[in-house]
Amino acid sequence: MGNTLGHCIRVTLFGESHGDAIGCVIDGLPGGILIDERYVASQMEKRKPWGRVSTSRREADAVKFLSGVRNGYSEGSPIAIMIENTNVRREDYAALARKPRPSHADYCAFVKYGGYEDASGGGHFSGRLSAPLVAAGAICLSILAGKGIFIATHIKHLHGVDDRDFGDLATDIAKLNNMAFAVLDENAARQMEKEIQIACDNKDSVGGILETAVAGLEAGVGEPWFDSLESALAKGLFGIGGIKGISFGAGFGFANLYGSQANDPFAARNGKIVTLTNHSGGINGGISNGMPIIIQCAVRPTPSIALPQQTVDLDAMQDTWIEIQGRHDPAIVHRARVVVDSVVAIVLCDLLAQRHGTMWLKGGKPCG
Amino acid sequence: MGNTLGHCIRVTLFGESHGDAIGCVIDGLPGGILIDERYVASQMEKRKPWGRVSTSRREADAVKFLSGVRNGYSEGSPIAIMIENTNVRREDYAALARKPRPSHADYCAFVKYGGYEDASGGGHFSGRLSAPLVAAGAICLSILAGKGIFIATHIKHLHGVDDRDFGDLATDIAKLNNMAFAVLDENAARQMEKEIQIACDNKDSVGGILETAVAGLEAGVGEPWFDSLESALAKGLFGIGGIKGISFGAGFGFANLYGSQANDPFAARNGKIVTLTNHSGGINGGISNGMPIIIQCAVRPTPSIALPQQTVDLDAMQDTWIEIQGRHDPAIVHRARVVVDSVVAIVLCDLLAQRHGTMWLKGGKPCG
Amino acid sequence: MGNTLGHCIRVTLFGESHGDAIGCVIDGLPGGILIDERYVASQMEKRKPWGRVSTSRREADAVKFLSGVRNGYSEGSPIAIMIENTNVRREDYAALARKPRPSHADYCAFVKYGGYEDASGGGHFSGRLSAPLVAAGAICLSILAGKGIFIATHIKHLHGVDDRDFGDLATDIAKLNNMAFAVLDENAARQMEKEIQIACDNKDSVGGILETAVAGLEAGVGEPWFDSLESALAKGLFGIGGIKGISFGAGFGFANLYGSQANDPFAARNGKIVTLTNHSGGINGGISNGMPIIIQCAVRPTPSIALPQQTVDLDAMQDTWIEIQGRHDPAIVHRARVVVDSVVAIVLCDLLAQRHGTMWLKGGKPCG
Amino acid sequence: MGNTLGHCIRVTLFGESHGDAIGCVIDGLPGGILIDERYVASQMEKRKPWGRVSTSRREADAVKFLSGVRNGYSEGSPIAIMIENTNVRREDYAALARKPRPSHADYCAFVKYGGYEDASGGGHFSGRLSAPLVAAGAICLSILAGKGIFIATHIKHLHGVDDRDFGDLATDIAKLNNMAFAVLDENAARQMEKEIQIACDNKDSVGGILETAVAGLEAGVGEPWFDSLESALAKGLFGIGGIKGISFGAGFGFANLYGSQANDPFAARNGKIVTLTNHSGGINGGISNGMPIIIQCAVRPTPSIALPQQTVDLDAMQDTWIEIQGRHDPAIVHRARVVVDSVVAIVLCDLLAQRHGTMWLKGGKPCG
Repeated sequence: MGNTLGHCIRVTLFGESHGDAIGCVIDGLPGGILIDERYVASQMEKRKPWGRVSTSRREADAVKFLSGVRNGYSEGSPIAIMIENTNVRREDYAALARKPRPSHADYCAFVKYGGYEDASGGGHFSGRLSAPLVAAGAICLSILAGKGIFIATHIKHLHGVDDRDFGDLATDIAKLNNMAFAVLDENAARQMEKEIQIACDNKDSVGGILETAVAGLEAGVGEPWFDSLESALAKGLFGIGGIKGISFGAGFGFANLYGSQANDPFAARNGKIVTLTNHSGGINGGISNGMPIIIQCAVRPTPSIALPQQTVDLDAMQDTWIEIQGRHDPAIVHRARVVVDSVVAIVLCDLLAQRHGTMWLKGGKPCG
Repeated sequence: MGNTLGHCIRVTLFGESHGDAIGCVIDGLPGGILIDERYVASQMEKRKPWGRVSTSRREADAVKFLSGVRNGYSEGSPIAIMIENTNVRREDYAALARKPRPSHADYCAFVKYGGYEDASGGGHFSGRLSAPLVAAGAICLSILAGKGIFIATHIKHLHGVDDRDFGDLATDIAKLNNMAFAVLDENAARQMEKEIQIACDNKDSVGGILETAVAGLEAGVGEPWFDSLESALAKGLFGIGGIKGISFGAGFGFANLYGSQANDPFAARNGKIVTLTNHSGGINGGISNGMPIIIQCAVRPTPSIALPQQTVDLDAMQDTWIEIQGRHDPAIVHRARVVVDSVVAIVLCDLLAQRHGTMWLKGGKPCG
Repeated sequence: MGNTLGHCIRVTLFGESHGDAIGCVIDGLPGGILIDERYVASQMEKRKPWGRVSTSRREADAVKFLSGVRNGYSEGSPIAIMIENTNVRREDYAALARKPRPSHADYCAFVKYGGYEDASGGGHFSGRLSAPLVAAGAICLSILAGKGIFIATHIKHLHGVDDRDFGDLATDIAKLNNMAFAVLDENAARQMEKEIQIACDNKDSVGGILETAVAGLEAGVGEPWFDSLESALAKGLFGIGGIKGISFGAGFGFANLYGSQANDPFAARNGKIVTLTNHSGGINGGISNGMPIIIQCAVRPTPSIALPQQTVDLDAMQDTWIEIQGRHDPAIVHRARVVVDSVVAIVLCDLLAQRHGTMWLKGGKPCG
Repeated sequence: MGNTLGHCIRVTLFGESHGDAIGCVIDGLPGGILIDERYVASQMEKRKPWGRVSTSRREADAVKFLSGVRNGYSEGSPIAIMIENTNVRREDYAALARKPRPSHADYCAFVKYGGYEDASGGGHFSGRLSAPLVAAGAICLSILAGKGIFIATHIKHLHGVDDRDFGDLATDIAKLNNMAFAVLDENAARQMEKEIQIACDNKDSVGGILETAVAGLEAGVGEPWFDSLESALAKGLFGIGGIKGISFGAGFGFANLYGSQANDPFAARNGKIVTLTNHSGGINGGISNGMPIIIQCAVRPTPSIALPQQTVDLDAMQDTWIEIQGRHDPAIVHRARVVVDSVVAIVLCDLLAQRHGTMWLKGGKPCG
């Protein structure tokens, strides 16, 4: 519940944006899983703000393993991960106390926690909490790579600009996992960066659509009904702040198709069952069918914008206006993609462990 | 996991489309909850096929309470619900054995269960399993109605036809909950029925988009991260067969908005905090903000179509063609809406029980 | 929680003693598990009252599989089990309404469920609910037998009478699983029956201590801390009404031993690690060590006695006296042993599924 | 599962005896719970080794709150607790690598984790891991004290020596919570210390029986069957290393009583329902009945003894002898009592949260 994701493999998040430390505990992994600290660090790097189009808050994001790891392998006991917050500036948020930022968690957290929460920078609801998820995800991505399962995400759409569709998956996944700004088409990438810059210049922000592909997942993964692949993935992905829509395969486009257009015919090819199209995004009845899993996530524009916004002074119960200073991103979609990959990897490891047992996960190899 | 939804209030599904019975067990409800069997029956009625635009399989769907209910109230012990399958025709599916129907669960279930599953009519993955969910949902809808929380769903879109947006929610919800074909605009309703009929005539099927509104939910409901309102609702809703996309508020439309357009300004109105717009669909940071919850579900066209389709003979491992006889719906979107209402109600009762305790749920009133 | 036992394999109980039906849903089992209805029936037989020393309530206890089973094998979908209550006599309990029977659940259920519960014969807390547990346990016992794991329980102690200790386990387990009154020493058996008869003649009841052995369990099973073998087994076993103490190996006797007496030295024998003694009952650090698991359960005397007892009239809030008519057991310890075997089997299947995956459970063979 | 205890309030443990840090994450607590760091420290003090009768390993056990706490109150976000290991001496265990200590977790952990575990001093299975449990328990004990619920444990029995029974609970609980060596009878205390000293002088160890009382718990707490008070408490308590038996009320003594002796008659006293005896230990049908909860825990002698012991060299697969150097306790029973109090408090907070909601827990007061 709440801060824990998974059944057999469980990741429990903790921390606040401007507290002492953030982190997570990963429970259920067997001994003997490769923990490649360089790969973990390289994944953390992808989540970091960069260049002109991101927040000026700079965090080292050094991942410290408090327990569960020795000599580069998991021990079998819970892996506790701690990332210290070094660049904390609660004072940036002092003026906003009791003046909730529109479309942020501030007001909801205030109602839920009765004013005891530390709302600075979103507190426990901050996107900063996705950092330990990326560290945990890196371990799970290694496990999956050891089984021949690879994951990558691109920015499919950003404020009017479309990236091209996935082509040859092996190539595209490898390419994306080595890119800082994960867009397959170069022109689209340049245009998207321009759109982000425009938003930034206008003290505004933009959202987008992320599309994820999972290659190499065997058929038969997922549980019926409420741990269907779609259910389990959505439970994890909707945990990421700012994701407001999730779809699989043809997604919302199904609403305008006939069944005869939407169905994916089966065919036997080289002794393997495949489908000739993949509108289903690799999932039928909630269970993987052996084709690539295709997921779309709609990301809202960062609610932190520097423009004046109307809100309420909760003490006076009067309307008021605020200008958010802080240090924020005009877009998070390009940083969120590695968080999406991470959550997908955690969920798949959990479902595979239910099917094959936790011991089966042993091993792993560095990816990217 | 799998067939169980919820933490404090838990619904566990069982059954197969052409087995002896389907049903569910509802655990965690306190004693003293109103169980209005007439209201339960009226909700079951909404899920039933009707007129020319639905399957010819007719089931009484008589809900039998095996335990947990006495004199019209819950006893506190688990409520076991059984619905007998009376109109079973496994022979309709004999020809399809080992020839999986495209985009159905057949092939995935075969891989997952090794051929031991009863695939007739989808088996455990059949939409028929949503019947006990509707019965459980009726109880939860009554509980919520007793707390002033009301839910309704309309067909927002069906194969090119749009319904109007929600207007005055109290009126619209009451209206929808008394309609068999839940469309707010009469012209749109007629056009949608026509579209379904065309698909039917062509031995084809259509999908659509359902939109749900929840009115009266207090602010502060939902848990951070992986039991966010979005996570918890999506986990439940993606359990429903055929749902391939879920979004909240502006959903995928966020991808083309600036933050300044997407953010919902707060305002104090009559001593209450409201937002002046509701692009967030009533949820910020995964927690309810007191505004109506707005959910969209994309429903794929029913994969059962009567047209010839390519598939594989699993025994011969050769491509082949099938024509599905059986009894099927050219659209399920109009029947699915009561399933969506039911799942939303179950999830909200569970989250409210976490916050206020299971005893708080006591009471309830018939709705509609 | 509550009525559900297990993580990967989950058994959810429902029903009341004098309601329409009792049963359970078993979720998480793969397809292809042997469901031998004759073996299930033979296990149900062991739980039935018999001869002069048991209640006169006679139930057919016919196990009906509502779902999840076909042609003698599990399908992979949830197995729903229903046992109809045929010999219901709520009127026996009418006089006891609002006069809670001492040491029964009546008063606690009244407080918890606010008077909405059906308290007749213990309602949901009745020992009758152990019948579906035995049915579910029979399936799990078959699974384990297929893996070379065997379980049996004897009455170690009953009102001053001791059975002999376990000797050769293979022989003793086989012997016990074919006995109606599970006592290894014949003289002890006769004396115990006499003790039960004396209690019966005096309108009184007796308790006892059950001891269970599990042979053939591999080392390495159990999770650290709160799903230790001891934790997981105790969670299940303390669910059984009347069990008020659980211990492993030397149990409470450890309190009078020195470490040098209590420790079990390791030795290598025929390429296998064994311990030379087994005071630990096969469990160290909560994990199986490959030696037989030894469990003791203390069972209180049946609280239903026919002697006059003091209680309170809850309406008048005055002290009063009752004489329980109904149909009751002067001892349940001899019937409870098959319930203990069943719960142990369910818990072990669940822990093995976490380690090796649910698919690993496939197969099974009839035992006994 | 595994390292997590609780449903609504969840404590997840991490760490190894000789790793960098140990700790836990407490999830589910509302904002506004008193976190009295002095009280937490005083509880940690009770768990520390002391005098001549404990290990010479000295740890500051400084509790660091990484998240979830601000200005002395919980924030509502997860509380992460870290305790750094400062007095680490892995070299003490080097000689024991691959020579598992009898009745320790070493061998089981080796099989389970494949040799990747850090077995030094028990690794993740070490009693040292109970330190964060005590910190979490201190918070839960404060919550309960704020509701008028008080808990204390005494050493009921140690190697032939009995303490007196509980008398006036309010007095005894207050007394015990201010004692370092929790024995009610002074003479018994002196004798027990002598017994520990004798064991110590002989390079041996002793076990004992702890008895816990909970005063002030309302009737109606606990869930039927597998989250019965007994199930939930036992699941938590059997997590503590060295506990090999748990019983409630008359416990194993029930086996020699008649029902007429064992039953607790109800009576109305001052408008309240009480029982005239408390053989049931405050629990009927798994639910609290309003009387004090009485729990016994059998603690085995510490397996770490300095005498030579037989074991196996796992590399050579040959019998061998070891002498454990390290720093160990000749008894842990006097230190374990505060761990027992802590686990009981965590479990009761969780069950109360299920009943009354997590928000109900808000508040708390320092105890002792």
